[in-house]
Amino acid sequence: MQTKEQSTEARALLAANVQELRTKMGVSQEKLAEMAGFHRTYVSQVERRVANATVDNVQKLANTLGVPVQRLFEDVKSA
Amino acid sequence: MQTKEQSTEARALLAANVQELRTKMGVSQEKLAEMAGFHRTYVSQVERRVANATVDNVQKLANTLGVPVQRLFEDVKSA
Repeated sequence: MQTKEQSTEARALLAANVQELRTKMGVSQEKLAEMAGFHRTYVSQVERRVANATVDNVQKLANTLGVPVQRLFEDVKSA
Repeated sequence: MQTKEQSTEARALLAANVQELRTKMGVSQEKLAEMAGFHRTYVSQVERRVANATVDNVQKLANTLGVPVQRLFEDVKSA
């Protein structure tokens, strides 16, 4: 069964984009988590693909990073 | 508190795009749910913005609809 592997593609894109934008913003994982109203370890979990984020939480991340939600699923590898 | 309202923007985009692509595909909400391996009412919940979908489930919807995840958060209103 490859279902679990397939399902991680979106997590990988989210993780890479959050990390990229957060680094550009110059804030730590814990700081971004605080700014977005999350538990202090949540951004770390997203960037390590451990968390299966909800759409509402992706929205909060996008709002805090100042980008549209769509930007967090951009395929940066192919750009 | 406008937090809840803010957080529904991504749900609205997801709902609109899933509905649009599903209709183009010519399948019912229940059929798409079945194809994606969800409970039969799940696509209906997503399209009514009731469900706070997870990234993994958004991935499954994208796979079933044959589009990248990013496409499901496209702002069709501004296109």
